[in-house]
Amino acid sequence: MSDTPFAAIILAAGKGTRMASDLHKVLHPLAGQPMLHHLLGTIDALGAARAVVVVGAGRDQVEAALAGREVAVAVQEPQRGTAHAVRQAEAALAEFSGDILILYGDVPLVTAETCARLLDRLNAPDAPGAVVLGFRPADPGAYGRILAEGETITGIVEYKDADAAQRAVTLCNSGMMAVRAADLWPLLGQIGNANAAGEYYLTDLPMLVHAAGRPAVVVEAEPWEVAGVNSRAELAAVEALWQGRRRARAMAEGATLIAPETVWFAWDTQIGRDVVIEPHVVFGPGVTVADGAVIRAFSALEGAEVGPAALIGPYARLRPGARIGRAAHIGNFVEVKNASIGEGAKANHLAYLGDGSVGARANIGAGTIFCNYDGYFKNRTEIGAGAFVGSNSALVAPVTIGAGAIVAAGSVITRDVAPDALALARPDQGQKPGWAARFRTRMAAKKAEG
Amino acid sequence: MSDTPFAAIILAAGKGTRMASDLHKVLHPLAGQPMLHHLLGTIDALGAARAVVVVGAGRDQVEAALAGREVAVAVQEPQRGTAHAVRQAEAALAEFSGDILILYGDVPLVTAETCARLLDRLNAPDAPGAVVLGFRPADPGAYGRILAEGETITGIVEYKDADAAQRAVTLCNSGMMAVRAADLWPLLGQIGNANAAGEYYLTDLPMLVHAAGRPAVVVEAEPWEVAGVNSRAELAAVEALWQGRRRARAMAEGATLIAPETVWFAWDTQIGRDVVIEPHVVFGPGVTVADGAVIRAFSALEGAEVGPAALIGPYARLRPGARIGRAAHIGNFVEVKNASIGEGAKANHLAYLGDGSVGARANIGAGTIFCNYDGYFKNRTEIGAGAFVGSNSALVAPVTIGAGAIVAAGSVITRDVAPDALALARPDQGQKPGWAARFRTRMAAKKAEG
Amino acid sequence: MSDTPFAAIILAAGKGTRMASDLHKVLHPLAGQPMLHHLLGTIDALGAARAVVVVGAGRDQVEAALAGREVAVAVQEPQRGTAHAVRQAEAALAEFSGDILILYGDVPLVTAETCARLLDRLNAPDAPGAVVLGFRPADPGAYGRILAEGETITGIVEYKDADAAQRAVTLCNSGMMAVRAADLWPLLGQIGNANAAGEYYLTDLPMLVHAAGRPAVVVEAEPWEVAGVNSRAELAAVEALWQGRRRARAMAEGATLIAPETVWFAWDTQIGRDVVIEPHVVFGPGVTVADGAVIRAFSALEGAEVGPAALIGPYARLRPGARIGRAAHIGNFVEVKNASIGEGAKANHLAYLGDGSVGARANIGAGTIFCNYDGYFKNRTEIGAGAFVGSNSALVAPVTIGAGAIVAAGSVITRDVAPDALALARPDQGQKPGWAARFRTRMAAKKAEG
Repeated sequence: MSDTPFAAIILAAGKGTRMASDLHKVLHPLAGQPMLHHLLGTIDALGAARAVVVVGAGRDQVEAALAGREVAVAVQEPQRGTAHAVRQAEAALAEFSGDILILYGDVPLVTAETCARLLDRLNAPDAPGAVVLGFRPADPGAYGRILAEGETITGIVEYKDADAAQRAVTLCNSGMMAVRAADLWPLLGQIGNANAAGEYYLTDLPMLVHAAGRPAVVVEAEPWEVAGVNSRAELAAVEALWQGRRRARAMAEGATLIAPETVWFAWDTQIGRDVVIEPHVVFGPGVTVADGAVIRAFSALEGAEVGPAALIGPYARLRPGARIGRAAHIGNFVEVKNASIGEGAKANHLAYLGDGSVGARANIGAGTIFCNYDGYFKNRTEIGAGAFVGSNSALVAPVTIGAGAIVAAGSVITRDVAPDALALARPDQGQKPGWAARFRTRMAAKKAEG
Repeated sequence: MSDTPFAAIILAAGKGTRMASDLHKVLHPLAGQPMLHHLLGTIDALGAARAVVVVGAGRDQVEAALAGREVAVAVQEPQRGTAHAVRQAEAALAEFSGDILILYGDVPLVTAETCARLLDRLNAPDAPGAVVLGFRPADPGAYGRILAEGETITGIVEYKDADAAQRAVTLCNSGMMAVRAADLWPLLGQIGNANAAGEYYLTDLPMLVHAAGRPAVVVEAEPWEVAGVNSRAELAAVEALWQGRRRARAMAEGATLIAPETVWFAWDTQIGRDVVIEPHVVFGPGVTVADGAVIRAFSALEGAEVGPAALIGPYARLRPGARIGRAAHIGNFVEVKNASIGEGAKANHLAYLGDGSVGARANIGAGTIFCNYDGYFKNRTEIGAGAFVGSNSALVAPVTIGAGAIVAAGSVITRDVAPDALALARPDQGQKPGWAARFRTRMAAKKAEG
Repeated sequence: MSDTPFAAIILAAGKGTRMASDLHKVLHPLAGQPMLHHLLGTIDALGAARAVVVVGAGRDQVEAALAGREVAVAVQEPQRGTAHAVRQAEAALAEFSGDILILYGDVPLVTAETCARLLDRLNAPDAPGAVVLGFRPADPGAYGRILAEGETITGIVEYKDADAAQRAVTLCNSGMMAVRAADLWPLLGQIGNANAAGEYYLTDLPMLVHAAGRPAVVVEAEPWEVAGVNSRAELAAVEALWQGRRRARAMAEGATLIAPETVWFAWDTQIGRDVVIEPHVVFGPGVTVADGAVIRAFSALEGAEVGPAALIGPYARLRPGARIGRAAHIGNFVEVKNASIGEGAKANHLAYLGDGSVGARANIGAGTIFCNYDGYFKNRTEIGAGAFVGSNSALVAPVTIGAGAIVAAGSVITRDVAPDALALARPDQGQKPGWAARFRTRMAAKKAEG
């Protein structure tokens, strides 16, 4: 890509009324992270020198969401149009003299490759004055049209101002563009607001560049890349676009998705080769699935590492810090949180493994609970290699079960168990002959009384 | 809407052979209630004065399903066509002199707004004699055609009787109509059965009205509103139409549906603002979700109230009588039935909370079971505010755990626990050193023997 | 169907590079069994006399997958085209003199009915020399075209060799065909490899048959039947086609699928009449569901029999050997494996029932675990009719609970319980007044210290 440093301005001052939400529009998540963060990830991948987010209302929310990131927040108040919004970023970029990439916080799918094409075109030998991202939707509808001869823009016209010939143009304006800082700031000052809304439109910039002696050119993207989010329905549509592409990539890279449309990935999910994902699986952020693992139906994973050839689910819930070893099995109705499961270990049924470790080839019986919480602190349960924890056991942490030890089914274990020992903690069994028959007689009578 | 009282006749005498079912066709559920009840809900919303359902076979099933509702059931036996079916409702409406709205039990999506348009048009100043509901499907196929000049009907023709010009008409006949009682009963008698099937067709009514001196007019609906159900595949298609519209409404009202097409609502589901619903969630009847609640993946709710900002799931099952307080958490593999969960209380893992109450901020450990049933009676478990129930505890109801009390993990609690007390019911832990190693040797040998 | 014996040659020597898999392409599963086995099932249904699979790399995998089946495997090495591939089957069919049906291992949806049409046409009185399966896709794209006068083939032309007029032909070549053994082997020798790839193409066979004096004819199939699998995305597409047809069949036969597109069947699933399947249900192989059963949301079944009017789920997992009796209930978070559940018995919540039996009308409380495994052997739990197993009980197998017996909640049962007896195995409950309050003070202080 071009060697010229670039800064990104992300416009996010729209009111988002149609979202009907207390959450700032650009913070609504897409594939498990805010739309805004998708864009920041995209420009980070390209090595952006600076990023400025221009917000209207909701500045606090946006700043909180950006905590720990080197992103400036500028405020546009009142909101007088997109050119006015861009101008609010000037102070934050006062020292910056490279290229400026202008993006929209509610248009999150634009790819790094497309951003690079904008910037590369700006830095091509013929040095155009601005590069605008256009697209050709199936139905151009009321989008603004880009009038161009070849790639050279001759005008950008709002749909409502367009004549019939202009409306017949299929090339539409996404609003995204690349321009040099040295051009942007002076030319912004020339944009007027003599229009019905009394607003300053960034749309005017390309022709001002042109008038200043260097052409503005258009680069085209696929329509899905410029899909915008103004409502929850559009958010769902953009999510579906993102997921459809991600599923296709997983399959192209050698994963089987039996029912692709029922699998939901997060922005950072990593899926290996010859992984099989059954229907109805949901990935939250932070999941890595190694080669040959099988994720069975109705599993939910987040913040988890799944080792090679591991068998997960059905109905497995892996939470942050779950690290499942090679060929280990986590079965139905089993939750693993902040715990390592060793190679070949098994926890196949109805268990809660929170805060601890399970050694290689250990077997955790059905109904086992790591009692990790005392109301104040989380404590760990450590289980050695080859140990066998009988069904329905409660392991009261902190506690260690030695390698090769056996815990008898139904035990409540409160003290450490030595390696190779048998631990038992269960009461004697008593029996009252005939009691059940008498009980039934009594209860049936009581029930008959009402 | 029009002030004239109206009665609805719902035709439901079709055999429904293609459903291949022992259940009466109009009782097959859509969004969790019978199709018939959707129509009754629609006319109830408009304040119908009377309703008559005309059935053929299966009267008992329909009457049972209508128990407690003021709806008359008339029987058409034998079945001699739709006009003959309508005539069976005459006795039940003998005293009624207002408007009659004729609907079909297997066409359940027609909206109250459309029914109101039919009745309003009937009562417009020009007082037409009948108002017929038409629609323009993408493919008119073999539907009967409405021939009209403007909105005035000049003929209704069955597809098989239509000539090429008539078949080119795109306006189709839904069969639904509004007519005055004073017109309906006399004119029904003029309908003949000189046709191939020897049946009496309601389709003839509009032109008889017209012949009697007042025009019949057409009102148009969207095709989805008149989608009919003659097979399970069509039932699924109508369910999908209903769900699609319900999802769109939830999103428009400010809920995020990450994967709308994987969320299934019931007819009466109520969803607040800034609610988030993750993929793969199923709502049965009777659910209310307050603002800001999150319903995570793979949750199933019915008859439940979810309080503001509560966190439900993944894999939470809320059954009738579950009332989840503000900001409470119900986590994975947890079932709540007929139980109140207090503000901020948590039951995050593998638990059954049936028949009882959990106080504010109480913590219910993993694997906790309310033992509510003795085979004859259901008994209650009451847990005070701030109590801490250790993991894998069995609470044998009726039992009360006082506020602030702690139940040690793995306990079986059969007697009440005082506030702020610790309750323990678990056996001593014993250990047999080296036993596990000896056991393994013995079992391996046994296994080797086969 | 034709009485002439037939043998099938299934070509499976393609490299499958785009699958990005270590698993042989034709072994990738579709509806729960390998694509290859779908084809073998299809020809078995027609009574194929012999079957030969021609493989390239991966012979061992294919042979292992065919273990126990009477199917020959021939190896094509190196791979010199489809005609060369067919020739590798000659040795295995040296003794066979009937008809030959040529199929493709990665085109698994072709139906028995279509195969029968090919063979029947070959044996019609006019005795054509070859019968080729054609199809007319919505977009013929780059498929080879079949040139025909009526059904008589006058040429088969690769797209790249086709002129504009030929490309305008919509009838495409699937490659599948039927031909007599007596024609096939001699004519294969006449096929040359004077083409860009230097390969021997089976496509040349029909015109050689024609040249030998008997016409080759075309039989047409629906495009979905000839959908091929060259990538995981195409595998998912073929899976979706298969599932769509299977769902339609289930509905036509009288099952309600509320959300058909969320239900995934296996190749051999059997569904009765008036079965209701809620959204999000997954069937693995070997499941039979009897009339009137209800499979609620989020259930996963494999190798299981569900009796009439049984109620399964939500969140029920039935594994191989689960046999659920008439009107029995298996509820949420319950796993059943290799166990019979008697008529009207109930296990409604959070249980593991592995290796055993539950008598009629028995009630299995929430949290019950069959402790069936000691690390070496699986042992059985037998529960008599009308028994009541209290919640959170652990039944340590081998163990028998007699008919009508009661197990007290929270018990660990290690010895048999007599019929009608009460079994108790739980510790005394102790209480330490005020302990919880003191604990909180201490822990809060500790937490404050950090």
